[in-house]
Amino acid sequence: MQTHINYLNEINLNNPILIEGLPGVGHIGKLAAEHLVDELEAEKTAEIFSPYLPPQVIVQDDGIARLVRIEIYTAELENNKNDVILVVGDHQSVENTGHFEITEKILDIATENNVQTIYTIGGLATGEMSDTPEIYGAVNEHYPKQKLEEKGVKFEQGKPKGGIIGASGLLLGLGNQKEIPATCLMGETSGYIVDPASAQKVLRILSEMLEIEIDTKKLEERAEEMEEVVSKLKQRYQEEQQQPQPTGDDLRYIG
Amino acid sequence: MQTHINYLNEINLNNPILIEGLPGVGHIGKLAAEHLVDELEAEKTAEIFSPYLPPQVIVQDDGIARLVRIEIYTAELENNKNDVILVVGDHQSVENTGHFEITEKILDIATENNVQTIYTIGGLATGEMSDTPEIYGAVNEHYPKQKLEEKGVKFEQGKPKGGIIGASGLLLGLGNQKEIPATCLMGETSGYIVDPASAQKVLRILSEMLEIEIDTKKLEERAEEMEEVVSKLKQRYQEEQQQPQPTGDDLRYIG
Amino acid sequence: MQTHINYLNEINLNNPILIEGLPGVGHIGKLAAEHLVDELEAEKTAEIFSPYLPPQVIVQDDGIARLVRIEIYTAELENNKNDVILVVGDHQSVENTGHFEITEKILDIATENNVQTIYTIGGLATGEMSDTPEIYGAVNEHYPKQKLEEKGVKFEQGKPKGGIIGASGLLLGLGNQKEIPATCLMGETSGYIVDPASAQKVLRILSEMLEIEIDTKKLEERAEEMEEVVSKLKQRYQEEQQQPQPTGDDLRYIG
Amino acid sequence: MQTHINYLNEINLNNPILIEGLPGVGHIGKLAAEHLVDELEAEKTAEIFSPYLPPQVIVQDDGIARLVRIEIYTAELENNKNDVILVVGDHQSVENTGHFEITEKILDIATENNVQTIYTIGGLATGEMSDTPEIYGAVNEHYPKQKLEEKGVKFEQGKPKGGIIGASGLLLGLGNQKEIPATCLMGETSGYIVDPASAQKVLRILSEMLEIEIDTKKLEERAEEMEEVVSKLKQRYQEEQQQPQPTGDDLRYIG
Repeated sequence: MQTHINYLNEINLNNPILIEGLPGVGHIGKLAAEHLVDELEAEKTAEIFSPYLPPQVIVQDDGIARLVRIEIYTAELENNKNDVILVVGDHQSVENTGHFEITEKILDIATENNVQTIYTIGGLATGEMSDTPEIYGAVNEHYPKQKLEEKGVKFEQGKPKGGIIGASGLLLGLGNQKEIPATCLMGETSGYIVDPASAQKVLRILSEMLEIEIDTKKLEERAEEMEEVVSKLKQRYQEEQQQPQPTGDDLRYIG
Repeated sequence: MQTHINYLNEINLNNPILIEGLPGVGHIGKLAAEHLVDELEAEKTAEIFSPYLPPQVIVQDDGIARLVRIEIYTAELENNKNDVILVVGDHQSVENTGHFEITEKILDIATENNVQTIYTIGGLATGEMSDTPEIYGAVNEHYPKQKLEEKGVKFEQGKPKGGIIGASGLLLGLGNQKEIPATCLMGETSGYIVDPASAQKVLRILSEMLEIEIDTKKLEERAEEMEEVVSKLKQRYQEEQQQPQPTGDDLRYIG
Repeated sequence: MQTHINYLNEINLNNPILIEGLPGVGHIGKLAAEHLVDELEAEKTAEIFSPYLPPQVIVQDDGIARLVRIEIYTAELENNKNDVILVVGDHQSVENTGHFEITEKILDIATENNVQTIYTIGGLATGEMSDTPEIYGAVNEHYPKQKLEEKGVKFEQGKPKGGIIGASGLLLGLGNQKEIPATCLMGETSGYIVDPASAQKVLRILSEMLEIEIDTKKLEERAEEMEEVVSKLKQRYQEEQQQPQPTGDDLRYIG
Repeated sequence: MQTHINYLNEINLNNPILIEGLPGVGHIGKLAAEHLVDELEAEKTAEIFSPYLPPQVIVQDDGIARLVRIEIYTAELENNKNDVILVVGDHQSVENTGHFEITEKILDIATENNVQTIYTIGGLATGEMSDTPEIYGAVNEHYPKQKLEEKGVKFEQGKPKGGIIGASGLLLGLGNQKEIPATCLMGETSGYIVDPASAQKVLRILSEMLEIEIDTKKLEERAEEMEEVVSKLKQRYQEEQQQPQPTGDDLRYIG
């Protein structure tokens, strides 16, 4: 099997914007993009299969197993100047060269459908929990960053330090070679947990940029649930810290 | 060397069913499929060699070394509506893309011989010993699961959690693209030991589905042997737990 | 994407020398070659992209992300018998075969431009800090080592012990097959830190060999900064060593 | 660069035997084959280069770096019914598929030169030092093992347990497909040290099989040197064991 696109429907969109949200740090991209699939009632129109994705099938709720894949959804937005292509999926490539190959397939879809702009969504791991995560951005040479800056997106050299890894980064770099404007929006996140709060914040900026209204209520609810889980974990940790320490004698018996 | 099939005999079967049992969790598939090879007196008719299998030869009891390989056995079953193709072997692929390539070779054999249905056999690691392992199933879109459910096979989303990995999974996923009905039967197993008891249970369901009688006596014997080994291990562990803990003084001398 | 060269300008050089300084031990090569880019006011004339480089983009100070790449700079040196091609970059290959592929692309540039000699720069890890790092050399069959020896460069079997790894080594080996004289200059370095002092020493020899004057003031300044950092680290370490050791009683409470 | 053979001289041999001794367990094969190169005054007639060998050059005693490679030596033996091809080298493949590719190149040399029989030499790790290492053998279907058994070579199923890995194994397996008789001779060795004593024992059997006299004096000397090193290590270890154990009080201060 070669990496290939399996079209389910003809795609016929008006000045489409492509938004990528594959699994990554804090699953920010995955949460945001899958939320958009739901809220925009997008339709699945293609799938990408690749031998660089894990050699697995996933068992769905009806007991039907399906190959690990990347999914392409499309939504025609009435009264909006742009339609939307959404890229979501189970995994990214597990091999170095596979990242390039899969990103090129996504770009094939972009060029075939005359995509105007690419938005990729990712997380920026800080190692710390924060109630007020910042949104960092990066652009390629064809995307003017000014409007993003006006909306509070920060641009800083070496953010993230190790570069933007995987499809979210390569779509900017390889997209640049094809002269497609592309930007990556990264929500700060601890890096330890799935982070719907940060995903929600990225999504708010994205909805302003695309001039579409997106109800983020479900993400908000998931963020609140997650916050509860985290605050319980914190509390338990603090309680453990306050417990009396074992004395030397105790220590002996622990062996 | 490319991945290739080496035919030893012409295969000429009647509505064959393909059963795959390559090494994996608890060696459930391997035990079950090799047992079938013996009991059905199946004949080796082809071998698959691949540079994605480990670069090794195995030394057999006559001192003759042979390449690591996947073996294709066939059995013509009189008075049965289906003949059988059995896929067993020493190893699975050691590289990601190799899993896809080897599975496609198995599917080549399936399509060339007009295989009606594919059964793959695997283990589902629970982390715990159990006297009553359940059998879980997964199917692709072309295999109706109803009859399996009637026989007690369970279907649950996310079982196993990490998906079905390797040939047992890919035969469902890639088989689906070729419109071959395929199902994977997974016996619960601890994941720590080779588990003939669970293999036997899977085999019982498989024999009912194929409407062939299979004597599982040898597997039963192996299961009893294994049970003895495990119960001795458990006993020794409990004895160790009940021994007096070392005191501080003892501890000093362990130093 | 295949490994490929992206030419930005036509290269038209006079008897060019190629100097490679990709990331490696102590970043000696990177520091020296990037210093040459600055001091010779070299112009970027080509880039090498490869799926064997990490699947990343790097965010620059203007927030613009660019693909990880290898850069080719060229400098026309008036009143000098040789012009210069400089090879710098973000990373080396992350896969075994990729090292060969990328080195061959660099050699394509060398042969297309009639390169006379190749200099590669590396570090030789000793595990110890030294104020007087030696410079070791290695040559291929077409490069006469005599002149380097006269300048104090040492040649010793098995230096470095594990061989010269990556582009700095392969340019000698693969360059030999193309009959291009090539030498690798390696500055001794601890292997723990980026080492501008050792890079400066290599650069001094290189400038003599090329008969070009290079102002190494900036490297000197960086070396002095680094020396300060290291001497502070040493001092702190010594202070810690002189602190009283914890007694048994103390130990109990650490528990 | 593809894996390729670089011929240095025309090979013109009489019923040649091919003997492979690439690096492996205890370096038994490497020691034995390189000893044969010296004693038979064999001439280097070809080299194999491959991107699956480490991306390195090795610095030789004259300061000249050369690519990591596999070397083919040939010796015409007067008054002997067979001439000899020797396969030695710096490394084996670092990737799974590379082992197959490199072995196939060695087999290309074998078939082009009408090789009658292949001997591969390896080590069999036992985890224990032994003064009387056994020699184990494995053969492919075209090599009759009887004569080896008469000379004391042992044949046992599952020796070594994990199979014979790398070129020493694949030459038997892939050689079998080309109908070339091939056998692997494995000297027992601890697996911890380079073992000239075991190499010498393998060589003695090999020389009897080939009916050529080989002076193993140099290997003997190296074996004696190694024995001294080992006995010193043993002594030091025993002395450490006999030192008084730290008491509890001491233990506290170790922290």
